Amino acid sequence: MASTNLTFSSRAAHREWLATQAVLPRGFRAGTTRFEFTPAEVGKKAAMNLTLLALDRPTADFAAVFTRNAFPGAPVLVGRRRLAEPTLGAVVVNTKISNVRAPDGENTAERLCAAVAGALGMAPGQVLPSSTGIIGWRIPIEAMLAAVPAAVAALAGGSLLDAASGIVTTDLYPKARRATVGQGSIVGIAKGAGMIEPNMATMLVYLLSDLAMPRAALRRLLPTAVDGSFNCISVDSDTSTSDTVVLLSSGAVPCADEAAFARALATVCGDLAEDVVRNGEGVHHVLRVAVNGAPSEPFARGLGKSVINSPLCKTATAGNDANVGRILAAIGKYLGVHAPDLDTSGTRIMLGGKIVFEKGSFQLSPETEAEVAAHLKQAEVYASRAPQDGVFRPPIDYPPHERCVELAIDLASGPASATVLGADLTHEYISENADYRS
Amino acid sequence: MASTNLTFSSRAAHREWLATQAVLPRGFRAGTTRFEFTPAEVGKKAAMNLTLLALDRPTADFAAVFTRNAFPGAPVLVGRRRLAEPTLGAVVVNTKISNVRAPDGENTAERLCAAVAGALGMAPGQVLPSSTGIIGWRIPIEAMLAAVPAAVAALAGGSLLDAASGIVTTDLYPKARRATVGQGSIVGIAKGAGMIEPNMATMLVYLLSDLAMPRAALRRLLPTAVDGSFNCISVDSDTSTSDTVVLLSSGAVPCADEAAFARALATVCGDLAEDVVRNGEGVHHVLRVAVNGAPSEPFARGLGKSVINSPLCKTATAGNDANVGRILAAIGKYLGVHAPDLDTSGTRIMLGGKIVFEKGSFQLSPETEAEVAAHLKQAEVYASRAPQDGVFRPPIDYPPHERCVELAIDLASGPASATVLGADLTHEYISENADYRS
Repeated sequence: MASTNLTFSSRAAHREWLATQAVLPRGFRAGTTRFEFTPAEVGKKAAMNLTLLALDRPTADFAAVFTRNAFPGAPVLVGRRRLAEPTLGAVVVNTKISNVRAPDGENTAERLCAAVAGALGMAPGQVLPSSTGIIGWRIPIEAMLAAVPAAVAALAGGSLLDAASGIVTTDLYPKARRATVGQGSIVGIAKGAGMIEPNMATMLVYLLSDLAMPRAALRRLLPTAVDGSFNCISVDSDTSTSDTVVLLSSGAVPCADEAAFARALATVCGDLAEDVVRNGEGVHHVLRVAVNGAPSEPFARGLGKSVINSPLCKTATAGNDANVGRILAAIGKYLGVHAPDLDTSGTRIMLGGKIVFEKGSFQLSPETEAEVAAHLKQAEVYASRAPQDGVFRPPIDYPPHERCVELAIDLASGPASATVLGADLTHEYISENADYRS
Repeated sequence: MASTNLTFSSRAAHREWLATQAVLPRGFRAGTTRFEFTPAEVGKKAAMNLTLLALDRPTADFAAVFTRNAFPGAPVLVGRRRLAEPTLGAVVVNTKISNVRAPDGENTAERLCAAVAGALGMAPGQVLPSSTGIIGWRIPIEAMLAAVPAAVAALAGGSLLDAASGIVTTDLYPKARRATVGQGSIVGIAKGAGMIEPNMATMLVYLLSDLAMPRAALRRLLPTAVDGSFNCISVDSDTSTSDTVVLLSSGAVPCADEAAFARALATVCGDLAEDVVRNGEGVHHVLRVAVNGAPSEPFARGLGKSVINSPLCKTATAGNDANVGRILAAIGKYLGVHAPDLDTSGTRIMLGGKIVFEKGSFQLSPETEAEVAAHLKQAEVYASRAPQDGVFRPPIDYPPHERCVELAIDLASGPASATVLGADLTHEYISENADYRS
């Protein structure tokens, strides 16, 4: 992942760069609107964003992958049906309520699609719905239908930045990434932040391209790109009921080079996946774990996940604490369950380029500890500030850099490797998910 | 689990009750000592407890189960060898450093055993070592050898309370539980708090009994008791490298009723397991998840673990937030991976006795939300207090009650069930593991 190594000194500098990424490919328009409503399940007001991504002409060339959570949201159920439709013309995305297993959820999702289709001169089956937010509540369908004309009126070409801002929730900043192939481009936007350990997909990701690529190719290339990007990340090990990645091609720019398209797609997906982790709820550090010498790729990925999902590894990282013992414990937990007979005598662990474990034992000294702690410190996105009211809030809303804590694990037990991205666990995560009522 | 439903209004009341549990069975003595040393890996001083549990006469009747982590500590490796010894006479336990994969770790563990054996007139193979604390550092063997005479001098009959206090680390209070069979008893002490998702054992647990029970029976009964107690809990999903449960019988009291012994053993293990969770690092709520209607017992346990290990379920619980959507997402994550084709139409979820999900959709209203929030509130062990310096510290060091958040999940898909115990995730956990240097 990580095709770039950017730094940003301010919110303004980050927004300016985002604008260079969020360039709408030819053949698309995008827009968003915001309104208030009162959820049926609680008495107080809430705000919702309704965002539209529309093709100038419906396209047969689209692909999507969805969550493998056994209780998928209504938009996921509707979205799976859309894969069988001859063409797709628009995507409608709402925030605040994810429309998961609420009474009558599929029907309300379809009513919203029908209203959007009517306003755009399409058929309901040409509109794909997406929802993110609270699980369990009903979407306020009447208020949403009333907001459709404003969303349609907001549709414009040029930039995806408003739409990228419209789909986010607890994210600190919008996320957009772009890669070009000749005269065309692939541009992706993502919503991330929490409930992030995708299983064959991630939260909400929309990839728009003007490069002509047939439906069959898109449906072959997208799962591969997702597998090497969104399926290799975890913020908090929770797999959402709403994970969705959609890829749409307007076909405005001819493209004969499928390999170049695949590379551009992998770049956009990999960069967006890293953005999702870096902007995960309360994240102070991104951990990149490279596992080598594993018996198989799934094994390597599982081992890496065991480290990045260990609360003790995560909290030690948050504290810039070179607690390498917790890393070994997390590796040993995974091996103890999945390969109790594996020969661990060749296992080597490097943190920030320093060998900390080799030939069966730790290689530690005050000097090593100091060097590793310095490595952790330079990868810190921000430090906590003790709040007056006990509720921790991130002090920034842009990513100051793209540095990671670099952990390398070599099992010396096979030819396979995998790289996963994770995050630390901080007071800001707790405040986001416990101190506020979501 | 939970054979009791105790409440404690003060630290003094809890200590008084603990003394009634920590009654040493006949044939044992216990003692502990504390000393300062300077770890080789860092420059500053640290303190260590050295605790002894000794039999008046070495016994052939002992059993132990150990961690399945693939990088077990040196004391675990030595302890596994001890299982083949004809008799065992003492256990020596140190805190602060767990002696895991440190250079020369097994040798230093054996040197400590030899010193203890020499002072007690035993052979080195009659002493079982246990260590808990930082993973990766070397134990200060010279300082420990120098402390052995003081530990031996502290050995006394009567109470296990000093030993129960000696083995704990970040625990807020010592843990001891007792069950009687006729004139004899089984008494257990435990060290818990963090890195708690045991796999076939738990942190450090010592079970002493004066009831005569042959070695073969102990080694048959202990794994069963551990499987239904310590293997059903998780504080933070991290499996330790040092998990150890040891059961010693002095044989001072004849016991012909193996079934009664097994019940008493299960009671002590179950109660201690709940104590470990209730005193887990930063725990505000204990969650008891009863899974019914599952295809198999391991499936039921895995599903329950998916809920109690979900950071979003844990943080919602910490906030007394009836966020039942996160519970469904955690169930759906597990089912999506392990039984994607399972019919979920009969799934029912009850929280605090209220149905919140049934017949495929949520059953929510402002009234339900209020009742479930009240249930969460009454199960709260303590609430956070915003600290001046940003470091959260538990305001109590005793368990005020034994109430749990009661979650019941019925899959309506089989005959099997399991109950697991978990904990919430709070600022105090983060402060313990990130704000301090461990």
